[in-house]
Amino acid sequence: MLKLYDLAGAEPDRRFSPYCWRIKMALAHKGLEVETIPWRFTDKEAIAFSKQGRVPVLVDGERWVNDSWAIADYLDATYPEHPTLFGGPAGKALAKFHANWTDAFMQLGMLKLVVLDILKHVDAKDRDYFRKSREERLGKTLEEVVANRDKDVHAFRESLLPLRLTLRVQPFLGGEKPLYADYAVFGGFQWCRCISDFKLLEPNDPVYAWRQRMLELHGGLAAKAKGYPV
Amino acid sequence: MLKLYDLAGAEPDRRFSPYCWRIKMALAHKGLEVETIPWRFTDKEAIAFSKQGRVPVLVDGERWVNDSWAIADYLDATYPEHPTLFGGPAGKALAKFHANWTDAFMQLGMLKLVVLDILKHVDAKDRDYFRKSREERLGKTLEEVVANRDKDVHAFRESLLPLRLTLRVQPFLGGEKPLYADYAVFGGFQWCRCISDFKLLEPNDPVYAWRQRMLELHGGLAAKAKGYPV
Repeated sequence: MLKLYDLAGAEPDRRFSPYCWRIKMALAHKGLEVETIPWRFTDKEAIAFSKQGRVPVLVDGERWVNDSWAIADYLDATYPEHPTLFGGPAGKALAKFHANWTDAFMQLGMLKLVVLDILKHVDAKDRDYFRKSREERLGKTLEEVVANRDKDVHAFRESLLPLRLTLRVQPFLGGEKPLYADYAVFGGFQWCRCISDFKLLEPNDPVYAWRQRMLELHGGLAAKAKGYPV
Repeated sequence: MLKLYDLAGAEPDRRFSPYCWRIKMALAHKGLEVETIPWRFTDKEAIAFSKQGRVPVLVDGERWVNDSWAIADYLDATYPEHPTLFGGPAGKALAKFHANWTDAFMQLGMLKLVVLDILKHVDAKDRDYFRKSREERLGKTLEEVVANRDKDVHAFRESLLPLRLTLRVQPFLGGEKPLYADYAVFGGFQWCRCISDFKLLEPNDPVYAWRQRMLELHGGLAAKAKGYPV
């Protein structure tokens, strides 16, 4: 069976990495079973075989793949008889932009709202690493970053306009059915839900309705995971 | 022959609408000839048949279509034997996001840098309309909007990171070849080039290299159009 190294918090069943969620949703989309192995930020030795230090790492028999995009690409190429994640070569090329927008823009906006909540859930042995690395990246203490989040969330919601306009006219980014682009963006929302009760979206937002659809996909895989109500 | 109502400036050959550029590039992509008809913002009567007041409007024999997305969709559906603009249903659904990101995010960033340059090029009869409508939308005088553009352009360039990360790994948003997503985003750059000598990008930016490729496509259609060097 496929194995996935999956970021966990202090509680082993709190799995909050947005990049791991992309892959868990992608595996469910393709109907592939997986055993997930809880992993913490500082467990570098456990994945040393992958010659780098971050999850997700997928192990498929003798082979392994790291990096969420590379794993999705591997899955679609290796299991072509299972439902497609990209919808063909054009869809694959185009979905790169959704993934990059999520990585470089949307998740950064989210991080500035929930980063202190993440700290509360990471494993004790990861806490120093997490605070130090994130404070360096953000240039402030984590407490300072989130100090005005009740106000900052309005700008965050506005920044989702390209997503909102798209989901106003079609149920998924991939059209009538979800594709990897949906999983890439949704990973960010699921990350926040797993470690924070902060309300990112308003219920009348088309993005909210889409997130509900994503939570319910594949037998409610994401909805059933340990986290907070949205 | 197909006819396209195409926004023009004081000089009839200065064609600067980003949405019309999407369609001119799309028509060239599909190898369809078109006659463009210069149109000004206040020429509402000329396109009254389309029951709305904005260009592009495409006329194909007895039929007409307005709105750039609807026109691209019409072209791909009506001329399926010509090269595809979307690369299939998944590609079409996914490209909605690129178009919405351009409309709601990227072009707004550009407008704040070049809006006063647009005013200098619009037809005399359009000037009052243009200043009034844009100042209402932006909540400032046009002079105030662009006052700090030499500084503001740095944040604009940073905001293109999702585009930059994508174009660092593939020549076009559509992959090895351009698709409608490329034309949607490029329309914004060509809009600026047609009415402003302001340097939006730095030459070492992968977005700059992509814009060069786009300018040279289809016999240099965009490069040859009246505008400023980039």
